[in-house]
Amino acid sequence: MKLYENARSGNCYKVKLLLSQLGKPFEVVHVELEGDRPAPVAEGNPIGRVPTLVLDDGTHLGESNAILLYLARGSAFLPDDPIEQARVHQWMFFEQNLHEPNIAVVRRWVHIDHNADQQGDVFAVKKAGGEAALATMDRHLQRHAFFAGERYTVADISLYGYTHVAHEGGFDLGAYSAVKEWLARVKEQPGHVPM
Amino acid sequence: MKLYENARSGNCYKVKLLLSQLGKPFEVVHVELEGDRPAPVAEGNPIGRVPTLVLDDGTHLGESNAILLYLARGSAFLPDDPIEQARVHQWMFFEQNLHEPNIAVVRRWVHIDHNADQQGDVFAVKKAGGEAALATMDRHLQRHAFFAGERYTVADISLYGYTHVAHEGGFDLGAYSAVKEWLARVKEQPGHVPM
Repeated sequence: MKLYENARSGNCYKVKLLLSQLGKPFEVVHVELEGDRPAPVAEGNPIGRVPTLVLDDGTHLGESNAILLYLARGSAFLPDDPIEQARVHQWMFFEQNLHEPNIAVVRRWVHIDHNADQQGDVFAVKKAGGEAALATMDRHLQRHAFFAGERYTVADISLYGYTHVAHEGGFDLGAYSAVKEWLARVKEQPGHVPM
Repeated sequence: MKLYENARSGNCYKVKLLLSQLGKPFEVVHVELEGDRPAPVAEGNPIGRVPTLVLDDGTHLGESNAILLYLARGSAFLPDDPIEQARVHQWMFFEQNLHEPNIAVVRRWVHIDHNADQQGDVFAVKKAGGEAALATMDRHLQRHAFFAGERYTVADISLYGYTHVAHEGGFDLGAYSAVKEWLARVKEQPGHVPM
């Protein structure tokens, strides 16, 4: 398999983390965050962004969480039980709807593009959205060790991607002690690799 | 089953559309868009928003797309093939990441809350994001009748929810003829119900 990716993207890291924990070999192709996309990303993936995974038969898959769910089929990282699987999905849609658009985007402006001061009103709205997402996670993690099925799944991998680098966007995790304890638990999982 | 929902929410409509097409009976409990959430939404669903589906055994499920995937298991609306299922997921994550946060939010400000002029810089950014999402959909639909597996699936239901009311947010679909033709195809599916 070939993974078109950028090393500073939490969305790409999620896929590399799962591939490592599954012990599946893969080749990495670096893609710049800005500029021309290589054909497998621009043409092979209708949404046109990284990560894009190209399977050995040439099939292209896009969207980090869809790739995680595909790779995790039949493994311990995705429960078979319909309700537990629905809870995995629930937290992964939360991640793409309320977490990533706020925390990943603020981190990018602050840490990578250094243009937070050019975002006008949007910056404060996204910063507040990120805080709200962290508070939702913390509330859940005060009563649960992981997000779904009381064990480490792709829902945790999905949310770990940008939460563990949220401080790079100026998010202070000090107020979210359950999130901090969960980050430590995720880091201890067998086969964990750093970003 | 009990569906906690609001009739003006496209996210809630998605679930009602699939339940109707599956022929599954359900009871609707109205929830205001603002204000106190009833306990099944505020406490039973960790993310705390509508739609929240309460199964007959008391299990609570949140996040519209997670509910769609749960209800569609084993039906014609969710392909069994791993690659086709990954494509369904891919478009549903696209919907929650690049489509709903822009098109649904702009529609709410323009059509429901009438406060678009109070959103500062955020309005233009979300309007442009919505146009980009429609352009991505149109590019795909120029070559495909539906989003995944060349047939009507929960990916279409997910994207139909807010696309078919995008004009209420001021989005002009005139430039997206493949999207307009797809909207008509979705409306013709057996068991279709209007919002």
